[in-house]
Amino acid sequence: MGGEWAANPFDHIQPSFKKIILMFSFHLKKAAGPAGPRLGEIHTARGVVETPLFMPVATYGTVKTLTPEEVAELGAGIILSNVYHLYLRPGVELIRSLGGLHRFMNWPGPILTDSGGYQVFSLAPFRTLSEEGVLFRSHLNGDQHFLTPEKVVELQEALGVDIMMCLDECPPFPCPEQDARRAMDLTLRWAQRSKEAWSNRGQALFAIVQGGMMPQWRREQAQALRELDFPGYALGGLSVGEDKETTLEMVAATAPELPEDKPRYLMGIGTPEDLVEGVARGMDMFDCVLPTRNARNGMAFTDTGRVVIKNAGYARDPGPLSPDCRCYACRHYSRAYLRHLFISREILAYRLLTLHNLYYYFELMARMRQALAAGCFADFHRDFYAKRDQGGNLSG
Amino acid sequence: MGGEWAANPFDHIQPSFKKIILMFSFHLKKAAGPAGPRLGEIHTARGVVETPLFMPVATYGTVKTLTPEEVAELGAGIILSNVYHLYLRPGVELIRSLGGLHRFMNWPGPILTDSGGYQVFSLAPFRTLSEEGVLFRSHLNGDQHFLTPEKVVELQEALGVDIMMCLDECPPFPCPEQDARRAMDLTLRWAQRSKEAWSNRGQALFAIVQGGMMPQWRREQAQALRELDFPGYALGGLSVGEDKETTLEMVAATAPELPEDKPRYLMGIGTPEDLVEGVARGMDMFDCVLPTRNARNGMAFTDTGRVVIKNAGYARDPGPLSPDCRCYACRHYSRAYLRHLFISREILAYRLLTLHNLYYYFELMARMRQALAAGCFADFHRDFYAKRDQGGNLSG
Repeated sequence: MGGEWAANPFDHIQPSFKKIILMFSFHLKKAAGPAGPRLGEIHTARGVVETPLFMPVATYGTVKTLTPEEVAELGAGIILSNVYHLYLRPGVELIRSLGGLHRFMNWPGPILTDSGGYQVFSLAPFRTLSEEGVLFRSHLNGDQHFLTPEKVVELQEALGVDIMMCLDECPPFPCPEQDARRAMDLTLRWAQRSKEAWSNRGQALFAIVQGGMMPQWRREQAQALRELDFPGYALGGLSVGEDKETTLEMVAATAPELPEDKPRYLMGIGTPEDLVEGVARGMDMFDCVLPTRNARNGMAFTDTGRVVIKNAGYARDPGPLSPDCRCYACRHYSRAYLRHLFISREILAYRLLTLHNLYYYFELMARMRQALAAGCFADFHRDFYAKRDQGGNLSG
Repeated sequence: MGGEWAANPFDHIQPSFKKIILMFSFHLKKAAGPAGPRLGEIHTARGVVETPLFMPVATYGTVKTLTPEEVAELGAGIILSNVYHLYLRPGVELIRSLGGLHRFMNWPGPILTDSGGYQVFSLAPFRTLSEEGVLFRSHLNGDQHFLTPEKVVELQEALGVDIMMCLDECPPFPCPEQDARRAMDLTLRWAQRSKEAWSNRGQALFAIVQGGMMPQWRREQAQALRELDFPGYALGGLSVGEDKETTLEMVAATAPELPEDKPRYLMGIGTPEDLVEGVARGMDMFDCVLPTRNARNGMAFTDTGRVVIKNAGYARDPGPLSPDCRCYACRHYSRAYLRHLFISREILAYRLLTLHNLYYYFELMARMRQALAAGCFADFHRDFYAKRDQGGNLSG
């Protein structure tokens, strides 16, 4: 397995190279105005990644069903993990004592960790918010924990990740206007405290823009966070229940207020269409559980629509999941076999569908970067929707 | 993935080569008497495999959690599937219409299918046995089916497998003597009918020796089946609840009565110790769900004993599952990480433990073949138990 993978995954990082790129940096290579699609590069101590990019989700230190070699081979340059989940299980101190998250999970490339703001507010069965931080119970065993912005930076520094996120308050949707306003103001004060707690400049720290579904507040918070000068900016609190039009309106309102020379990360979003629309509005980084979670639910993404593999119509189908796809699953297995595996609850079904879906996502990002490099993003955008319209609903 | 794997897995089989080895054959290279350890080679249209060998179990057309490339890379030459399971789901006619089992599951090497005798008698919630065959209900949906020896050969021929097993009656343990006798006699008559139904000599057909726990009956049936001249012989109805001593007594009683120039397959057995003792008594082929099933239950095989990965003692253990093991899991992951994955119910845990356990089984078989080739099997046998005695119970 993985003959080209170094026996020690850290061998390929030369000490001299490490020194040169110890500081995180972003290089904008091409941009269509302050809020149009952009092409760039993020440099980290663990490698260079091209933007726009998609980060597969490795919540518990594994991109579900796959080995790190498979994730890299599919085209992932950077992966996302979550400090809330790792803090509760197996514990950040344990991971640090074993050499940090990269060594623990055998992933030598860059890692971004989410701060857990979203998880505390969506998963914890009990929580009390104060100016100081958030008191909550573990969704795993009910144990009580107290997290502050400073503690969350400290935990991410202990994990040794390449990009850290500030702790934010992520309000539910819908929520009263004053709650969204309070969350946004607290998130700003916490961002300032996070920056003050940040000690290792080799690990980048990104701020998160909140502001509910109010374009004016989003603009206002982007401006305020911009003053604090972070290495990168994220848009949080979106795709929490609002309609797509509203999500994109918030993105469009925020983008022009962010510095052009810093990466912009649209958190937790989304579908292939969302990625295309996010890129069109100047976003550089994306993550979402959809390609991996849907794979485990038997759903495959294709250019012409979604394939629900358990459908009876595929029982004797000798064709691949997607006719033009060159992924491992499509090169070697029929829909009939994949359906059989899925119905038999065989783990290989989840692996093959995950490989396919991530391949599709990385291909999509690569096609967008190619279009941006060639200056024909508008053509790409038109073709993308034309194919989908032709496809109809494959699974109907 | 799998750069050395042909895009079309059947490409490596040259038509001329196919012609030459169309007939199944066994070549005994070395044997310590009629019932002592043996070294040999099985030639099939889909490749040559060395004996003694272990067949990983691919009940539903997948070695659970792994791709065929991984299974091959681990060292499997031949895998085992099951006509009873495939007949019920997804159906043999469906697999045949898609090009046969090899193409369906993307495994270009030899496949042996068990006939389903054991499954009919252990899984089906209702069954009626007659001279003609067995009427039973599916354990999946209760549908009624009737299988005869002829039908089971026909199904295996339709799957296109390389080695087929005769339908047998596998009595429970313990059972009244007259039941064991009746099962044995019926199994013999069914073997004769199976041979008469067998139409494609490119697919080998093995007979199964029953006879309960009576050495004399085992000998008697081996002699009777030998008269019928099958390409290979299996020992069935063992490891069904009897003690180890009895199992090995039955093996020792049967082996001398089987032809030396035909492979001997000890069905469904077993632990590493069982493989060593089976080889010591002249058995050539083995299969068992233990390495794969125990992996999914968090148990790893090592030279010095078993590792139960969920044990709290491994929570911060930076070492590999097994210190001297060169498998992918042991080269890249700590016990601490594997324990974390297992406790988090991550699919990667099942994959990595399966990779390790099968690696261990194939290594064990390779070491036995090396010892047999070098004429030092007795030394191997002594060392094997010495290491285990040193190890104690790792998981205690």
